[in-house]
Amino acid sequence: MGDRTVAGSPAHGDPGMDALRASVRAFAEEREWQGFHTPKNLAMALAGEVGELLAELQWLTPEESVAVMSDPGAGQRVRAEIGDVMIYLTRLCDVLDVDLVRAAVDKLADSARRYPADQARGTAAKARP
Amino acid sequence: MGDRTVAGSPAHGDPGMDALRASVRAFAEEREWQGFHTPKNLAMALAGEVGELLAELQWLTPEESVAVMSDPGAGQRVRAEIGDVMIYLTRLCDVLDVDLVRAAVDKLADSARRYPADQARGTAAKARP
Amino acid sequence: MGDRTVAGSPAHGDPGMDALRASVRAFAEEREWQGFHTPKNLAMALAGEVGELLAELQWLTPEESVAVMSDPGAGQRVRAEIGDVMIYLTRLCDVLDVDLVRAAVDKLADSARRYPADQARGTAAKARP
Amino acid sequence: MGDRTVAGSPAHGDPGMDALRASVRAFAEEREWQGFHTPKNLAMALAGEVGELLAELQWLTPEESVAVMSDPGAGQRVRAEIGDVMIYLTRLCDVLDVDLVRAAVDKLADSARRYPADQARGTAAKARP
Repeated sequence: MGDRTVAGSPAHGDPGMDALRASVRAFAEEREWQGFHTPKNLAMALAGEVGELLAELQWLTPEESVAVMSDPGAGQRVRAEIGDVMIYLTRLCDVLDVDLVRAAVDKLADSARRYPADQARGTAAKARP
Repeated sequence: MGDRTVAGSPAHGDPGMDALRASVRAFAEEREWQGFHTPKNLAMALAGEVGELLAELQWLTPEESVAVMSDPGAGQRVRAEIGDVMIYLTRLCDVLDVDLVRAAVDKLADSARRYPADQARGTAAKARP
Repeated sequence: MGDRTVAGSPAHGDPGMDALRASVRAFAEEREWQGFHTPKNLAMALAGEVGELLAELQWLTPEESVAVMSDPGAGQRVRAEIGDVMIYLTRLCDVLDVDLVRAAVDKLADSARRYPADQARGTAAKARP
Repeated sequence: MGDRTVAGSPAHGDPGMDALRASVRAFAEEREWQGFHTPKNLAMALAGEVGELLAELQWLTPEESVAVMSDPGAGQRVRAEIGDVMIYLTRLCDVLDVDLVRAAVDKLADSARRYPADQARGTAAKARP
């Protein structure tokens, strides 16, 4: 990975993501959890963590949710849940050999074609990136 | 991309993530969707996309899920759903001003403390990164 | 309730639920889907349908969500998604041999003990039935 | 509702469901949580509970998930999570004035039209009740 800073092509992710993916993989391997980490199981775990994130926000008004990070306790919990979601998403992409950032960039380009800005402006029905 | 090491401080993510976050933000602003993009709404949208990802994997055996990317149709759909999940997760972090990769790195360190490798080895009950 | 006590013992649910469970089971058997209907797969399918329900509500304000059934299109979609959620929840309970209504009644009694009314009054932090 | 005990018609639910709905409503009112219980918030809470259910099943093999109720600890947790899911689903239907069982019956009839048994037999791609 010595030439990563030279190569660092978007197709292969970038150093921050590379390091995270390697760390998550090492974490799983040290605990011998590879057998549990099928794409199916990891998608379930991802959904479970998203559920915990929802639980942090479910009773808040929209306005309270905007300010959630300014509450030390809730802010810390939200950040931790986001961390868990990202860990499983990174691990899922690792076992599937999917470049996470590239998959998002490609999907965003696809969504831009399907929801032209001039037609979707301010319309909730189409408010999907 | 020669300025990768200069531009991408860990505290602010790295260029790949930075570029994605900027693109997702621009996508939302061009469509005037900022008002819809509260943390609460984005967490719901994130969960909805994870639900679509689950739907792609729900009837597969564990073995089939491991091989899902080798099926052109299913592989493309899974990659697209992962892209959608990442788009909303990136946007959520943008509006919350949370560094997504850093949040995952920090949570992984926290999990390493809570689940020591020598105690968690091969144990499904603790199979949580 | 003349024949209710004979037909619908609490242990097995009541006629409405009994009929639904039988219909969902017949639906699956006619399509030879029993092999797909493991608890694990059904829980994923349940989550996928809940994701579709969230998608119907995600961009609405709280006030708009309160009035969602008065919009013919959105109301019909919400009702259909709720139907799908209930179908999978019923099927999950069928394969697990869990009495769905009884499980909810028992859990509510448990929650009543954990969140006494006089302590939880109006407190979002505890707003969990 | 005077003819409820005679008719017990599916259109109005049945006593078991009626009693559950009334109990869940009373539970919320005693704690003055009505303000929190918008359809949007309740759908999020429902998703959060489904996430907890997924967490109980995520590392199990399909075969282990089939036998989950024979493990006293896991079985009790699964049943409790199903109870929580049903409580929020019942409450969501109460605030939306949707008949939960009827919504499922209607959706199943709709699915029967869309997935004829002779075409969907044994096909995972269509394995959706």
